[in-house]
Amino acid sequence: MIVDSALYRKGQRVEVDCFPHEFEKLRAEATDEGDFVWVGLYKPSEGELDDVAKSFDLHPLAVEDALKAHQRPKLERYHDSLFLTLKTLWYVDAEDAVETGEINLFAGQDFVITVRHGRGSELHSARSRLESDTAILTHGPGAVVYAVCDSVVDGYGDVLDELQVDVDEIETSVFSPARTDDSNRIYVLKREIAEVRRAVLPLREPMRKFAEGMVDRVDPDAGPFFRDVLDHLNQDADVIDNLDSLLSTAFNAHVARISVQQNDDMRKISAGAALVVVPTLIAGIYGMNFEHMPELGWQLGYPFALLLMVAVSAGLWVLFKKSGWL
Amino acid sequence: MIVDSALYRKGQRVEVDCFPHEFEKLRAEATDEGDFVWVGLYKPSEGELDDVAKSFDLHPLAVEDALKAHQRPKLERYHDSLFLTLKTLWYVDAEDAVETGEINLFAGQDFVITVRHGRGSELHSARSRLESDTAILTHGPGAVVYAVCDSVVDGYGDVLDELQVDVDEIETSVFSPARTDDSNRIYVLKREIAEVRRAVLPLREPMRKFAEGMVDRVDPDAGPFFRDVLDHLNQDADVIDNLDSLLSTAFNAHVARISVQQNDDMRKISAGAALVVVPTLIAGIYGMNFEHMPELGWQLGYPFALLLMVAVSAGLWVLFKKSGWL
Amino acid sequence: MIVDSALYRKGQRVEVDCFPHEFEKLRAEATDEGDFVWVGLYKPSEGELDDVAKSFDLHPLAVEDALKAHQRPKLERYHDSLFLTLKTLWYVDAEDAVETGEINLFAGQDFVITVRHGRGSELHSARSRLESDTAILTHGPGAVVYAVCDSVVDGYGDVLDELQVDVDEIETSVFSPARTDDSNRIYVLKREIAEVRRAVLPLREPMRKFAEGMVDRVDPDAGPFFRDVLDHLNQDADVIDNLDSLLSTAFNAHVARISVQQNDDMRKISAGAALVVVPTLIAGIYGMNFEHMPELGWQLGYPFALLLMVAVSAGLWVLFKKSGWL
Amino acid sequence: MIVDSALYRKGQRVEVDCFPHEFEKLRAEATDEGDFVWVGLYKPSEGELDDVAKSFDLHPLAVEDALKAHQRPKLERYHDSLFLTLKTLWYVDAEDAVETGEINLFAGQDFVITVRHGRGSELHSARSRLESDTAILTHGPGAVVYAVCDSVVDGYGDVLDELQVDVDEIETSVFSPARTDDSNRIYVLKREIAEVRRAVLPLREPMRKFAEGMVDRVDPDAGPFFRDVLDHLNQDADVIDNLDSLLSTAFNAHVARISVQQNDDMRKISAGAALVVVPTLIAGIYGMNFEHMPELGWQLGYPFALLLMVAVSAGLWVLFKKSGWL
Amino acid sequence: MIVDSALYRKGQRVEVDCFPHEFEKLRAEATDEGDFVWVGLYKPSEGELDDVAKSFDLHPLAVEDALKAHQRPKLERYHDSLFLTLKTLWYVDAEDAVETGEINLFAGQDFVITVRHGRGSELHSARSRLESDTAILTHGPGAVVYAVCDSVVDGYGDVLDELQVDVDEIETSVFSPARTDDSNRIYVLKREIAEVRRAVLPLREPMRKFAEGMVDRVDPDAGPFFRDVLDHLNQDADVIDNLDSLLSTAFNAHVARISVQQNDDMRKISAGAALVVVPTLIAGIYGMNFEHMPELGWQLGYPFALLLMVAVSAGLWVLFKKSGWL
Repeated sequence: MIVDSALYRKGQRVEVDCFPHEFEKLRAEATDEGDFVWVGLYKPSEGELDDVAKSFDLHPLAVEDALKAHQRPKLERYHDSLFLTLKTLWYVDAEDAVETGEINLFAGQDFVITVRHGRGSELHSARSRLESDTAILTHGPGAVVYAVCDSVVDGYGDVLDELQVDVDEIETSVFSPARTDDSNRIYVLKREIAEVRRAVLPLREPMRKFAEGMVDRVDPDAGPFFRDVLDHLNQDADVIDNLDSLLSTAFNAHVARISVQQNDDMRKISAGAALVVVPTLIAGIYGMNFEHMPELGWQLGYPFALLLMVAVSAGLWVLFKKSGWL
Repeated sequence: MIVDSALYRKGQRVEVDCFPHEFEKLRAEATDEGDFVWVGLYKPSEGELDDVAKSFDLHPLAVEDALKAHQRPKLERYHDSLFLTLKTLWYVDAEDAVETGEINLFAGQDFVITVRHGRGSELHSARSRLESDTAILTHGPGAVVYAVCDSVVDGYGDVLDELQVDVDEIETSVFSPARTDDSNRIYVLKREIAEVRRAVLPLREPMRKFAEGMVDRVDPDAGPFFRDVLDHLNQDADVIDNLDSLLSTAFNAHVARISVQQNDDMRKISAGAALVVVPTLIAGIYGMNFEHMPELGWQLGYPFALLLMVAVSAGLWVLFKKSGWL
Repeated sequence: MIVDSALYRKGQRVEVDCFPHEFEKLRAEATDEGDFVWVGLYKPSEGELDDVAKSFDLHPLAVEDALKAHQRPKLERYHDSLFLTLKTLWYVDAEDAVETGEINLFAGQDFVITVRHGRGSELHSARSRLESDTAILTHGPGAVVYAVCDSVVDGYGDVLDELQVDVDEIETSVFSPARTDDSNRIYVLKREIAEVRRAVLPLREPMRKFAEGMVDRVDPDAGPFFRDVLDHLNQDADVIDNLDSLLSTAFNAHVARISVQQNDDMRKISAGAALVVVPTLIAGIYGMNFEHMPELGWQLGYPFALLLMVAVSAGLWVLFKKSGWL
Repeated sequence: MIVDSALYRKGQRVEVDCFPHEFEKLRAEATDEGDFVWVGLYKPSEGELDDVAKSFDLHPLAVEDALKAHQRPKLERYHDSLFLTLKTLWYVDAEDAVETGEINLFAGQDFVITVRHGRGSELHSARSRLESDTAILTHGPGAVVYAVCDSVVDGYGDVLDELQVDVDEIETSVFSPARTDDSNRIYVLKREIAEVRRAVLPLREPMRKFAEGMVDRVDPDAGPFFRDVLDHLNQDADVIDNLDSLLSTAFNAHVARISVQQNDDMRKISAGAALVVVPTLIAGIYGMNFEHMPELGWQLGYPFALLLMVAVSAGLWVLFKKSGWL
Repeated sequence: MIVDSALYRKGQRVEVDCFPHEFEKLRAEATDEGDFVWVGLYKPSEGELDDVAKSFDLHPLAVEDALKAHQRPKLERYHDSLFLTLKTLWYVDAEDAVETGEINLFAGQDFVITVRHGRGSELHSARSRLESDTAILTHGPGAVVYAVCDSVVDGYGDVLDELQVDVDEIETSVFSPARTDDSNRIYVLKREIAEVRRAVLPLREPMRKFAEGMVDRVDPDAGPFFRDVLDHLNQDADVIDNLDSLLSTAFNAHVARISVQQNDDMRKISAGAALVVVPTLIAGIYGMNFEHMPELGWQLGYPFALLLMVAVSAGLWVLFKKSGWL
């Protein structure tokens, strides 16, 4: 699906009299220095993408990658254009889960093509923000690359904030006195953190290259801006490592607490058992059939025996309470 | 066994009037620029391989390696030819197991020799695909190297998809309420993932060299294609790391759940024991031989005692149910 | 909030007749070689920081970073100025916790701007120390950068000393014979050590650059001083690794001891149970209703039975004591 | 002990009329280009080694190392000679253990000196093989270095095959239903694998240097041969990592299975206990002394009670069997 | 405290007519090429060290480091002198503990100053050895640096030998059938190994620099000697890694054995309980009050019942023995 296609000149969107899919007509208008076309696609069909590829001379391998949408984040340079793949992340509250999408971006001297896959990776707001900021847009395709990267990486931060909340909840749960089986949640969270890691870490290399001005199609003056994105990625990477390591530690603590609880339970059970077993012994003694057992003839023998049982149990109770077994 | 041997010219298979094993005759026909011979061997005997080695001046160390078939993936350059070793992988559904084969590949200016070991590493379809794509075949031996690598690496993806399914099954099993002893399956799967890792990881270095055009016998224009293979390997490496780490986490969760279950069992057993032991105490009390025990003379003393037992047990039952011990 | 702003000339604070926020007036006085202005801000409002940025031509991205105060330690070079971010750490005794603040520092040829966030990151004493040491202050902004770094890194050492005490306490607790549930404390401490690590480790790279004289605005003669700071950071990093690894080992030992204690408890409980169950069997035997049981008719049958119970229990007691079960 | 000393010329052993320890006489005969002396020593005394050192101008530090025999594998270059240390490994079937020896090798332009320590590191067969292969021997001392390295590294492969068998045995044992305490064997095997690792890994660096022709005394044409040795070492390193990681996983599985077994045992024991405790309660009930208990007067009361006990126990048995507790 | 101060010329100690603390007088005598002064200090006061610093133009930062004695091993170059910090280690038999000291060493063209902290780091014997070896001493300050390093690193080897013995003891203890709580000892030993590691590992970098002749004040000819020290450090590092990893494995085995023992205990306890509980059931049965129980009237009913109990218990005993539960 073609979401939007437009020509930009001196930071302004220029109306061109053509259908959105008449890319060559659109590109033919980009005659001035700094003019460029931005085509936005969402889950394009093979045909749509082929049209775009033909109009902008995209490398077939990059086009194939853009169609499949199961790439690692990466930056590749073909003769006269860039191909950048980013993973988009968002947090689905209803399911407490992280979902991933993908943006593939082609950038040449006079064009940018963005190909989105998956829900939540919208670029409309990034385009609007750019269109309202003429100063940045005048920098050409590089500005769009920056805007997309910035928007995607901002999304990472939001997801990590949510995951931080989840880790805090697990932490509270693990150290609460309640019996909780946190291993399942920890497992799921570790899996999600691994997914975030796979989106964040490989993107640092492309951003580093942009920041150091090592990429042809991107203005070296844009370096500090990409360095800013890289800073965010580095900070995200730190957060990811920290969350993962906290989860591991929390898991170990969880296991240790299970053992401690089992120990406590065992001692409580044993103490409880003693409260029943010792009176049973007393009852057994007075159930013996000896002919000469003075207590049996007492008028108050029976209440005495019951009292003895209660007294012994009460004594054991106090003893266990004092020693912490109950 | 000689599977196939043919001469290729301008991307076309050329019929040469000779027996498959008359390699020198075949090679003598490769007179034009870009002509090359492709010999395919399957588990060759020492004699067969020696014939080939003599006809194409292969280095004895490489020939020895090609015969033994227990190599690590590697790329080696001898004076005027390349020697590439790849591990092939396939998943045997019947046994839920990964099996490995090996392809050794010699490439010179006018020849490619492929030596296969193990089931499942067939190259026939790769040859057919190539023969139907004249454009690629015109690139000479390098095209064959690419076609073989691409085909082998595609196979890795399939195997990883199957292993992903296995890991998902284990995950489900670990977190199911049923008592499952997953450690054996996790162990076996970890072993298989290690095997896949040993095939995938060392192959990245040769692909990187091809992608960067650092290898003589391979056309630098083929770089993007080998970069594509390298991308797949990198993605496979990510998947492998992820599966392995998921398995480790799942294993830990498995152990934690055993502890939780033991805890639950212990509490259930203790509660169950209380339901028997307390009535036993009551029976013991009324089994005492005191002369003066009023209840013993009651007309309904016996039903009363039975009722008392049932009532106490029922009370305990409710208590344990409420506190989650039963 | 503007904490202080002053002009320094030849290592002396020069009184300038202006309000603290008249930065441009102040800067205009810095006409001699080596003159510089030092502005100290604490949690500045966006407006205050914008004023400063305008007066000293600070890069907008750096200003944005200085405002937000959730940065990683880093050093960035903009055309004619440096931007350095440091994390400050201090130990709150009341809560046994580490808190973090942040100092952002801009340094140009004739100015230093320090922006503090969070309690405890005071720079007043650093400024006083510097003002009393004319020799150092004559080195210009670089001297202030050093003084700030030195002061902050000294703070790290203090925090690590406190954490060392905490780890020692945990160690004592883990290996004490008392039953302690140390996993919570170990978890919290690991979390704090991770926080310290995130402050200390990334700062080494900027200090290394200063030490090697790779930074424009800093006098290469200051190298040994920054190398001294770097040495402290390296030593801190060693201590952090060591504490973290000690905690992990202590945690494992904690878990092992829980198991050992459970084992001990189980044996004690079993031995205790035997002391009750065996006499119960004896009572049961003499409770049997056989017509011909000679003991039942004995005059001293009952005391004999009681004695037998005591004797058997005492025998078991000795046995268990000897074998270490009680 | 001097094992052998000989002069080689054009790949042939040349008889020189002197005693084995007359090294200088022997060396004096090595006048032609390519001539060299090979002296083989086994656990030499300090005096013997000093003689050799004097005759061949060996560096005192290298001589000291060769005498002590507790070196890491390493390659060192002294002005005009090489000093190479290798660890030899062999598997002692009787003890299921790996033993280590050491070979120190000095190589100059016209001599090779091999100093062996420990059983099993024999070089006699390597010498015989070399002497029967004139083509290789003509390459001078470098050929001997290769032959020794090749022979030693072949030994590593044999040892690893044996260790593989041991790991397979442990794997079978861990996952067998029998109760096995495998931790001791796993520990011992891990220790032996660590020993093999210490022999194999550091040797890769010297082999890499030889393979890349970076070492003066060794013919660059020998590169592929040393690369072959290096390949073996790399493959050995892979196997070592794999075995070690399998052992760790097996150990974890072992621990998990202990827990599972304990769980099973606990349930079995509890079920067994129920089969005894419940009849005891019934016996207790009919042991009560109520005056009005109709069953007591029944003619078949006693068999009825026994039957009741058996029936209840049988019912429990079926119940436990069904629920998997027995 | 000034331990010794002397002038060396051509490898000989030269008597100078001055007090030990008249450093400038002493230094003034070092007029010939190769002459140098060696001052040995032990826990110097700030004043003593200041005197020395003034006489030999030492850098204040290095002097501060030398005074405090809590440095990491490091090598620093100030304009015309070296500053080397080494950690000394020794094993205190009485406490089975490793203690650390520190040696700080300044080396200039005509002086060496050694500053020792902590017991056991004596240098007297190193000085004596050097003074008796004129050949080495003629190499000047570099020779002293080597002698000190060599002596300190020899000490590491001794400490590691003792730790090896400790690890062997723990290993024996872990796998002995006795119940041992080894976690405390393993913890302490891991802590000590970490301390040794912190002394050994950072020293490798300075030694590497000396070995490669990258340090101005040290004769490049001394390279092989420092390489020898570096070899020792590398070997020590291997041993440290190995000991640490053995301890970890031993700890895991320790935990596994606790579980196995608990399992064994539980089975033994259960079997023991059965031997008491089953006879109790029999006693309960013959304690029932049925009017028609033929056995009760038997002349030998009582002995029969006792025999039955014994027989059943004996049967169970045999059963448990056979199945390994007792």
